[in-house]
Amino acid sequence: MKSKTPAVVLLSGGIDSTVLLHNLVKNLGFGPVHTLSFQYGQRHGRELECAEWQAKAVKASSHKVIELDFLGDLLKGHSALVSGGKKVPAFSELSEEDKAQPPTYVPNRNMILLSLAAACAEGLRIPDVYYGAQATDSYGYWDCTPAFLERLNHVFGLNRDEPIQIHAPFVRMPKSEMVRLGHELGVDFAHTWTCYRGGEKACGECPSCVERLKAFQDAGAEDPLPYQRKA
Amino acid sequence: MKSKTPAVVLLSGGIDSTVLLHNLVKNLGFGPVHTLSFQYGQRHGRELECAEWQAKAVKASSHKVIELDFLGDLLKGHSALVSGGKKVPAFSELSEEDKAQPPTYVPNRNMILLSLAAACAEGLRIPDVYYGAQATDSYGYWDCTPAFLERLNHVFGLNRDEPIQIHAPFVRMPKSEMVRLGHELGVDFAHTWTCYRGGEKACGECPSCVERLKAFQDAGAEDPLPYQRKA
Repeated sequence: MKSKTPAVVLLSGGIDSTVLLHNLVKNLGFGPVHTLSFQYGQRHGRELECAEWQAKAVKASSHKVIELDFLGDLLKGHSALVSGGKKVPAFSELSEEDKAQPPTYVPNRNMILLSLAAACAEGLRIPDVYYGAQATDSYGYWDCTPAFLERLNHVFGLNRDEPIQIHAPFVRMPKSEMVRLGHELGVDFAHTWTCYRGGEKACGECPSCVERLKAFQDAGAEDPLPYQRKA
Repeated sequence: MKSKTPAVVLLSGGIDSTVLLHNLVKNLGFGPVHTLSFQYGQRHGRELECAEWQAKAVKASSHKVIELDFLGDLLKGHSALVSGGKKVPAFSELSEEDKAQPPTYVPNRNMILLSLAAACAEGLRIPDVYYGAQATDSYGYWDCTPAFLERLNHVFGLNRDEPIQIHAPFVRMPKSEMVRLGHELGVDFAHTWTCYRGGEKACGECPSCVERLKAFQDAGAEDPLPYQRKA
């Protein structure tokens, strides 16, 4: 990768996309960098504030929030991740079937977000889109796997004029490694959000909190977020 | 194809998707059928009225318009198809380069629409999505080709729980054949809209009108729409 390569970066405000963004800008010298977030009725709207904060922290050239409220309407009753949807279970309540495809799965979310990001990138004439899919996610989400990425890029390869490439450089990296890398890069993890529930503090017991806490523990680091309880 | 298979159908209100819808319901006995339209800031908002009319004509179980206004904002200056974008040229003004990738191209539009349709279908637990890509379109749009469809379905194949299949049964059929088939099926073409410009009457000279008029001529049929002029 050359320095001063422009990029479009999907930024959710969680750990993975935040570390990815800091790594692109600080370690790899990418720029200008345009960040994109999505509002799709998720319960954890707090992550959007974190995304904005992190975009400013790396002096992104632009930060855009795309409103996809209708997606929440469409998915109510199907996904626990959107307001009005099913209850977000505690990690300890997950069945084996849930672990294969968790109730927080949003149908086809990543293709929707990446297809929109690709349209933005094409509009900006920037061929490279980065997103923070990483290894721990792929246990249950078919659309966080290396195969998903490879096949999606195969579709974009048909666009002769502006063949967009989606990159997920951390797709094989465990979350604890992301935490370690983030620490090296001086990422302020107090401005990242992971909890799937919509509370004031992170709940500490939903699958996402449990995964986050374990990643910090494995990395030998302290999570600066306040929690309601730690499972 | 079996009768009484449910389907999600992308319905723009143009000729292709309208004939597709009538064919699924009347010739092939599909049902229930759920139709989806998209508002993405297109100049030719009239097509959305036609879509609604045609959904009623076949007694679709549901008809939904998904608002993607932000897409228009994103694409202003890039595509001539959205309000505030570039002027829609007359067919006679198109350069050879324009014909390869016309100025009415909307970046990555079909993947965006199909990824949303797939999410809806997954929410409804309906595995089959139909859209009206057809042969005449593929001259300039990379995302109307059989290869696009094949590669996109290859992505969906990774979803073990609900592998959505996108079908474009007319992808190799010329538009004049669509007109012929529509006539056989009793489609009221006065309630279809094709013109890319936003006028009261169809302009008769934009690439889309020219293509439509030629299709009717080749089919030996009369287009019931009023035109400002016929190129």
